[in-house]
Amino acid sequence: GHELLAAERATSNIPVEKLSELLYTKEVLKRKQCILDVLKSEKVFDKSQNYFGGRIDRFETALARAKKLRNLRLKHRWNLDEYRTALEMISEPGPYGLHESMFLITLREQGTPEQHELFLKKAENYEYIGCYAQTELGHGSNVRGLETTATWNSQDKTFTIHSPHLTASKWWIGSLGRTANWAVVMAQLIIDGTSYGPHPFVVQIRDMKTHEPLENIHVGDIGPKFGYNTMDNGFLLFNHVKVPHIAMLARFSRVEPDTCKYVRRGSPSLVYGTLTWVRSTIVMQAGSVLARGVAIATRYCAIRRQFQDRDASEWEKGENSVLNYTMVQIRLLPLLAATFALHFTGKAMMNLYSENQKKMNASSGNADASKRGAGPEETRSGSDILADLHATSCGLKSLSSTIAAEGLEVCRRACGGHGYSSFSGIGPWYSDYLPTTTWEGDNFMLTQQVARYLLKSARSVASGKAPMNDTTRILSQYISRADIGCAFDILSRDSDIVDAFAWRTAFLTFEALKHRDEHKKPWNDLLVDFYRLSKAHSQYLVVKNFYETLQSPATVSQVDSETLGLLRKLFRLYALHTLEQEASEFYGSGAITIKQISLTRTSAVMKLLKEIRPHAVRLVDAWAFDDWVLDSSLGRFDGKVYEDMFYRASELNPLNKITVDPFPASEVLFKRDERAKSKL
Amino acid sequence: GHELLAAERATSNIPVEKLSELLYTKEVLKRKQCILDVLKSEKVFDKSQNYFGGRIDRFETALARAKKLRNLRLKHRWNLDEYRTALEMISEPGPYGLHESMFLITLREQGTPEQHELFLKKAENYEYIGCYAQTELGHGSNVRGLETTATWNSQDKTFTIHSPHLTASKWWIGSLGRTANWAVVMAQLIIDGTSYGPHPFVVQIRDMKTHEPLENIHVGDIGPKFGYNTMDNGFLLFNHVKVPHIAMLARFSRVEPDTCKYVRRGSPSLVYGTLTWVRSTIVMQAGSVLARGVAIATRYCAIRRQFQDRDASEWEKGENSVLNYTMVQIRLLPLLAATFALHFTGKAMMNLYSENQKKMNASSGNADASKRGAGPEETRSGSDILADLHATSCGLKSLSSTIAAEGLEVCRRACGGHGYSSFSGIGPWYSDYLPTTTWEGDNFMLTQQVARYLLKSARSVASGKAPMNDTTRILSQYISRADIGCAFDILSRDSDIVDAFAWRTAFLTFEALKHRDEHKKPWNDLLVDFYRLSKAHSQYLVVKNFYETLQSPATVSQVDSETLGLLRKLFRLYALHTLEQEASEFYGSGAITIKQISLTRTSAVMKLLKEIRPHAVRLVDAWAFDDWVLDSSLGRFDGKVYEDMFYRASELNPLNKITVDPFPASEVLFKRDERAKSKL
Ligand SMILES: Cc1cc2nc3c(=O)[nH]c(=O)nc-3n(C[C@H](O)[C@H](O)[C@H](O)COP(=O)(O)OP(=O)(O)OC[C@H]3O[C@@H](n4cnc5c(N)ncnc54)[C@H](O)[C@@H]3O)c2cc1C
Ligand SMILES: Cc1cc2nc3c(=O)[nH]c(=O)nc-3n(C[C@H](O)[C@H](O)[C@H](O)COP(=O)(O)OP(=O)(O)OC[C@H]3O[C@@H](n4cnc5c(N)ncnc54)[C@H](O)[C@@H]3O)c2cc1C
Repeated sequence: GHELLAAERATSNIPVEKLSELLYTKEVLKRKQCILDVLKSEKVFDKSQNYFGGRIDRFETALARAKKLRNLRLKHRWNLDEYRTALEMISEPGPYGLHESMFLITLREQGTPEQHELFLKKAENYEYIGCYAQTELGHGSNVRGLETTATWNSQDKTFTIHSPHLTASKWWIGSLGRTANWAVVMAQLIIDGTSYGPHPFVVQIRDMKTHEPLENIHVGDIGPKFGYNTMDNGFLLFNHVKVPHIAMLARFSRVEPDTCKYVRRGSPSLVYGTLTWVRSTIVMQAGSVLARGVAIATRYCAIRRQFQDRDASEWEKGENSVLNYTMVQIRLLPLLAATFALHFTGKAMMNLYSENQKKMNASSGNADASKRGAGPEETRSGSDILADLHATSCGLKSLSSTIAAEGLEVCRRACGGHGYSSFSGIGPWYSDYLPTTTWEGDNFMLTQQVARYLLKSARSVASGKAPMNDTTRILSQYISRADIGCAFDILSRDSDIVDAFAWRTAFLTFEALKHRDEHKKPWNDLLVDFYRLSKAHSQYLVVKNFYETLQSPATVSQVDSETLGLLRKLFRLYALHTLEQEASEFYGSGAITIKQISLTRTSAVMKLLKEIRPHAVRLVDAWAFDDWVLDSSLGRFDGKVYEDMFYRASELNPLNKITVDPFPASEVLFKRDERAKSKL
Repeated sequence: GHELLAAERATSNIPVEKLSELLYTKEVLKRKQCILDVLKSEKVFDKSQNYFGGRIDRFETALARAKKLRNLRLKHRWNLDEYRTALEMISEPGPYGLHESMFLITLREQGTPEQHELFLKKAENYEYIGCYAQTELGHGSNVRGLETTATWNSQDKTFTIHSPHLTASKWWIGSLGRTANWAVVMAQLIIDGTSYGPHPFVVQIRDMKTHEPLENIHVGDIGPKFGYNTMDNGFLLFNHVKVPHIAMLARFSRVEPDTCKYVRRGSPSLVYGTLTWVRSTIVMQAGSVLARGVAIATRYCAIRRQFQDRDASEWEKGENSVLNYTMVQIRLLPLLAATFALHFTGKAMMNLYSENQKKMNASSGNADASKRGAGPEETRSGSDILADLHATSCGLKSLSSTIAAEGLEVCRRACGGHGYSSFSGIGPWYSDYLPTTTWEGDNFMLTQQVARYLLKSARSVASGKAPMNDTTRILSQYISRADIGCAFDILSRDSDIVDAFAWRTAFLTFEALKHRDEHKKPWNDLLVDFYRLSKAHSQYLVVKNFYETLQSPATVSQVDSETLGLLRKLFRLYALHTLEQEASEFYGSGAITIKQISLTRTSAVMKLLKEIRPHAVRLVDAWAFDDWVLDSSLGRFDGKVYEDMFYRASELNPLNKITVDPFPASEVLFKRDERAKSKL
């Protein structure tokens, strides 16, 4: 394997380091290396037993790691970014996960200064370990349907938290199962028999000394999952538990203790900002999440040899690298292109987000903000950057996490039988990533938000309003050519590819508008069309962002022209392969001809595969994953795939410490078990 | 949940039992019930801890179950079908898996009577526990590339089995890791320095008493996998191990001990028959494999309520069953249709297979058979039923296992967050099924065989030969209309749908032929086209078989006309949804117009979803999976989803026996561990 990968690297002279710097920046790469060195030197982070442990062993190790990492952070004074880098390299969800994300964020953003003093400080100090308890057994996506109640008691100025039914049990709550002693609990606020919708309450759930559940609280771990088993997702039931007035996080609304009136204050648009931020990070990460799988599969398929080429004349020539088979290339190389496409899109999203935050901060205190209603639905499309950002983040979160999750499975399968081994490193990574397609907005449901936004934008354009942003711009352009049609020279001009994607989005948007506004079709009858529309729009955004990144002076100045040329090929491969997959929509919209589709399929894409193939290994090298991070036999940088597989199976695998009695006539199962011995 | 499912069942009057009988026959249903009763009464088959155990615990239990099952078989005198039914209901791979399949089959089919006496008898008695050791660390698909050698020693008339490199290590071998004491080993036969290709040898690998590996044999389990962890897939290295002359399975070829000559005898076409049979069973099972996931997801989505319909006027109406959302329907109902499509196709395949076996047996001893070369490639297309059967089984194995595997993940995701819990029952089932897409011919590679067959058939048709089977028939029809074109009324005539699928296959076949024979394109450049072609042809076969099953008098006589009407709707849904997914190929072939595609997408498919929706729960009931078999909280027949989730999490989950110390400042991880106690 070793020489084979070396030979692969010799066939290309793409400057790997430069490309890494383009992806991450020099500083980040340096930071990563420092942190990696720290982690590698700590025994608790040794990964060699990761794939063998059962649920409880793995959870125990994850807890030890979480503690150690917290202590390392203090010791090395890591900032949040550095800490996150460490978590990413450890690559497993841990028991402090929700404490460190949603618990702290919610306290910070929704608490008053008094509540910060009381809760947030202790939480930041890990005196309180918390979680974010929103989802229930019966309700996830529909937050308004939550059943847990928080009833205001005017006599003693407390709230009673209660779970009226089994389905009101909190469920799926990360860090709650075994670890947390406090929780932010979303509950229906009830004052005097009237419900005011779900609100956040800070509730102690376990004893600070014994760590046993407090009275009238039933809490525990919800059991094994498809992945994520190092995390203790939990359940939580309340039997009339009283909490003080201060428990309700009161930055945006509160109950006046004296008048018992419900009072709103300010606009929670910042909270929607957070949701958008979370989704943007998902987009941002999708590229590198997928890149792990692509790196592993590409390296392995480069060294894996199987069969001689059918058209090769002499057997002597030896077996072919399976990465040379076009059927392997068509599975892996478009995904390789997608890793860059998603990464650049994520960066662009993040920039958009920061811009918006700046604007919002600039106009804060400004009366305008508080006039806006509670949800993003209330924002004004076409003129409102928050609305655009919200829709973009929904659509891209859905598309990018779907591409990453499904792409990882494609990578795993491309490795043939060995892809099925845990040592491939793809399966476990995939299983842990998979819930991303469901949480922070189920990927199918999010598309309704995108469609709603596009419909509003289309109505605004149709009513003659001038375009205010890119979305309304592409919609107006489409309208302006209603009687002229279009012609996109997709196979010779890159900008035409982007325009063809824009055209299709606009076409589908106005189709949907017609169905909804003219034909008055029920919303539910249009969900499938909306899904398609959102996907089309999001694909347009990815293609556009990839294109623009490669055009930008910042990029052009950072890499040499050969590398830039290769990146442009990756752009074309990503865009044309996507177009080919969705051919009937492009064709149906009139954006391209049948001949163009057929040329794309049989000629353009196949040619790009051939051109990119020699650079494949260097391109995945540019993602700069350390072997320790990948923890994969198949993806080793040095190509020593078989040696590593064999070592893990034969030296590390605890099942081999057991000798069975194989005969059905005997009731003895294990004749000899040397596990205990070797543990010492 | 209970009343909700009852209400679902009340909205349809499809006779569930009749439909079950159509799928399975009355006898099989009765047999299943008997066996189920036996299994349920044995404590070792209790499934309640299945989802919690680590690898070694689960393997231990699986071994106990394997032994018990063997003993039950003896006790109840179960025949092979009954035994398989039991295995299917236990639903986990077990350590005798490869002994009972490939080890016995290979001994039986490739052994001489003398070898039967010596090996097979003992194997059938479980005195020898065996496995089938073909794949190596370095070679899987390319069997000719195997590196293990079996060198003939003329002096003492033995073979020396040897693994010359690390990559020659046998790998992935089911039942080998811990259980087997014998193995059929595929090794390159070398006589006098000349290699005769891979041949099967029967080799003892572990001591019959101590079960320790014999001298110069290094054997063990290959470690944890994405699924299949109750099976001990193993590795095996030989260091010059001598075996006697009788070790080489000699039905089809042998080394003459005196002359040291290699002698072939008879044709191993029976062996290819076995391969075809194995693939046919995969096709057959794909329907019910997928049906488990569809049953679970359909029942759960029927009782899961989330949000009110957006167009509903009053909040009072309560939340909507998520199965009412068209975006859920479009994911689940075409898969529901696919379960029937695949099941009927599998049955048709099996019939074809039996027919062929009969013919082969009738003509055995017949000189014709032995004139045929070794592989299926040597068969004559167009006139040879074996060639057709071989290609059909390759294409359908690939298509059906892909549909089943990917469909299961769609089902899991349709269940939202709860789909991610092991208690959903879909994830574990999916993980165990997944290797089916890779073994018995990797699903991507098999498509080359199909393309090769279609190309040969097309050449035969082009050269003017009269059509001899369905494949050549559709190719000739296409040719005969070369100057006329076609018109298929797919939205009003079901037979036209089948014809449109045939047309697309023929179009793609002749396109591929042009590329290969006229343009002389390299084989490798065409692999992607071949994949498409094979998929197209296999989809045609599924659609055709589904259609014909519903036309056949046997079917018509078994169910009432309303049920038959519903099955026809399922046929249309499956066929039109597939057509819509592949629209650009249909369009490109000239089989249908853009208008038809658009009508299919926005109208025909959506209407079918609406019509099938009320019958969904009864349709999955017809698959007659017992709750014990599904082992799923979400898929319970009685709809008590939440109660069951809660019970498993709160009462059965061993992690809840542990109390942690959550603070990073403390090095204590588990404060209290009550697992041991409760085990007693
Ligand atoms: C590993 C993991 C960790 C989690 N951690 C946390 C946590 O820490 N804290 C927390 O509060 N929650 C957590 N969750 C819960 C998660 O947020 C929810 O599972 C998620 O929001 C999905 O909601 P649901 O399960 O109710 O899906 P459902 O809404 O029940 O969805 C079921 C199906 O119905 C469809 N559907 C539902 N409504 C509609 C509609 N209106 N239109 C069309 N289709 C529809 C969906 O697409 C889906 O196919 C976690 C979940 C997982 C899997
Ligand atoms: C759970 C499990 C159980 C198994 N049990 C057994 C057992 O009991 N006994 C046994 O002998 N084996 C067993 N196997 C091995 C199994 O048969 C092989 O893994 C399988 O045949 C695939 O071969 P491979 O791993 O060599 O894939 P490879 O051939 O290495 O495939 C790697 C990649 O290359 C592609 N590729 C390879 N050649 C070509 C080509 N010519 N053209 C285009 N693409 C190509 C493939 O599509 C794939 O994407 C088992 C495997 C698994 C996962």
